[in-house]
Amino acid sequence: MEIGLIGLGKMGLNLALNLADHGHQVVGYDNFATFEEDSFKRVSSIEEMVGSLKAPRTIWLMVPAGEITETVIGELLPLLQKGDALIDGGNSNYKDTLRRAAMLQEHGIYFFDCGTSGGTEGARHGICSMIGGDEEKFKDIEQVFKDISVENGYLYTGKAGSGHFLKMIHNGIEYGMMQAIAEGFDILSKSQFDYNYEEVAGVWDNGSIISSYLMGLTQNAFSKDANLDEIRGVMNSSGEGQWTVETALDLKVPAPVITMSLMMRHRSQEDDTFTGKVVAALRNEFGGHAVVKS
Amino acid sequence: MEIGLIGLGKMGLNLALNLADHGHQVVGYDNFATFEEDSFKRVSSIEEMVGSLKAPRTIWLMVPAGEITETVIGELLPLLQKGDALIDGGNSNYKDTLRRAAMLQEHGIYFFDCGTSGGTEGARHGICSMIGGDEEKFKDIEQVFKDISVENGYLYTGKAGSGHFLKMIHNGIEYGMMQAIAEGFDILSKSQFDYNYEEVAGVWDNGSIISSYLMGLTQNAFSKDANLDEIRGVMNSSGEGQWTVETALDLKVPAPVITMSLMMRHRSQEDDTFTGKVVAALRNEFGGHAVVKS
Repeated sequence: MEIGLIGLGKMGLNLALNLADHGHQVVGYDNFATFEEDSFKRVSSIEEMVGSLKAPRTIWLMVPAGEITETVIGELLPLLQKGDALIDGGNSNYKDTLRRAAMLQEHGIYFFDCGTSGGTEGARHGICSMIGGDEEKFKDIEQVFKDISVENGYLYTGKAGSGHFLKMIHNGIEYGMMQAIAEGFDILSKSQFDYNYEEVAGVWDNGSIISSYLMGLTQNAFSKDANLDEIRGVMNSSGEGQWTVETALDLKVPAPVITMSLMMRHRSQEDDTFTGKVVAALRNEFGGHAVVKS
Repeated sequence: MEIGLIGLGKMGLNLALNLADHGHQVVGYDNFATFEEDSFKRVSSIEEMVGSLKAPRTIWLMVPAGEITETVIGELLPLLQKGDALIDGGNSNYKDTLRRAAMLQEHGIYFFDCGTSGGTEGARHGICSMIGGDEEKFKDIEQVFKDISVENGYLYTGKAGSGHFLKMIHNGIEYGMMQAIAEGFDILSKSQFDYNYEEVAGVWDNGSIISSYLMGLTQNAFSKDANLDEIRGVMNSSGEGQWTVETALDLKVPAPVITMSLMMRHRSQEDDTFTGKVVAALRNEFGGHAVVKS
């Protein structure tokens, strides 16, 4: 089918190629991307995109969550018609999605939130997608999700918001799994034994209970840098872990492992901590214990 | 090759069948197992087993860690000869393994510690195995591990103790991964959305970053009992998680996620907690906040 795709960055471009591979007519737009690519049509403005698609339109947003998504939806709104469908494929906060879906519904526009997992490789060759939105309208566009996903790798998750919510939780779980794997290797590194981490990750990824996509990535990382000497242990994050913990707090769900994984990421951002200074100072105050001077 | 196998429980029996499939001559012994099985030889005592194997012998122990392993090794010791090899395939504490390996070395007996992962299905059709012990002697028995493991699923890990240590850390990681998955589903269950957990686990196991053997098991579990209504959330444990945390403490490695996973298992054993009573009592003391009466 005809699909407008706004945002041709790492994820969007691969998704466009994936869609084109499956015979969809992609009309792409990005105000920054400068690459040449002739497997799909490129347009130079959002107006041109909307004008070149037959109604009812299907437009996929693959732009950064937050302000940019908000701005693009704002630009699209006056151009769209009743019956058009807008898919937000980014990692938007599900609360924003709930608000946007309600607003667009007032204009008769269907809004779908599609959480995606699988990285750029997945976007190119098969992602995992979780889609919330109108159930009847979903049937009209279901083939798109089926085509771009791995086998059994797409799921209609219910009303709008449920797709991004599920992707958020997916990322929270990912934080916990990654931190657990990392702590295990940290203990190995300080043990009396002399392990080859690449080999360990490799054997754990073959036949063990903890075999996983992440263990495969762990093996890849150690294959490139046996002891990860080339990088520092600074763990950045891009929001979904934080939102998962905020949601756990909202819903009063005890989620200590996901929370602690997030806190350890925040801890990793600091070379020294004020917490450490306060504890060291207190030990000195009550027991005269030595402190390390700045 | 000829292999003596002591312990024909769930794991041992499947391992015996797996070994027999690969053309090994298994001599099995178990003082409890009563099943009929003609794919390998059965003997009725440890003495008979040792007598029926040609030296240098290879004997695999697949008995519960702790006292039983200790007792069986004690019974075997006077019957074995210099050059024989003993493989402990159970989940022994690596500190016991270090002690046993040193003791057996004094008698000229090779001791190998083989951590295994993959459950009973793995034991039958291909496990993941991590083996510590003498490097030269390992070459003589390597084919056994290669045969019973999945492809690329065995690893010589170094000196005695390193196999059980690695299996212990494997289980610690497993605790963290399982708790992270479980917390994610707990948040889903309390959300405003209405997810089918079997479908969610299914889509997450196809193409997503958190796809894993454990996610497949999660899908299996929900396929049998959609909301797990049939079971209580009591999380037992069998030692390796506790040892991982003890080891993290010994080595002064911060491992909050694995530790918290273990603590949550301990928490799940209690219907009510003394911690809860103390906090409730204190809130009442300082602020007159209501308590829930027993």
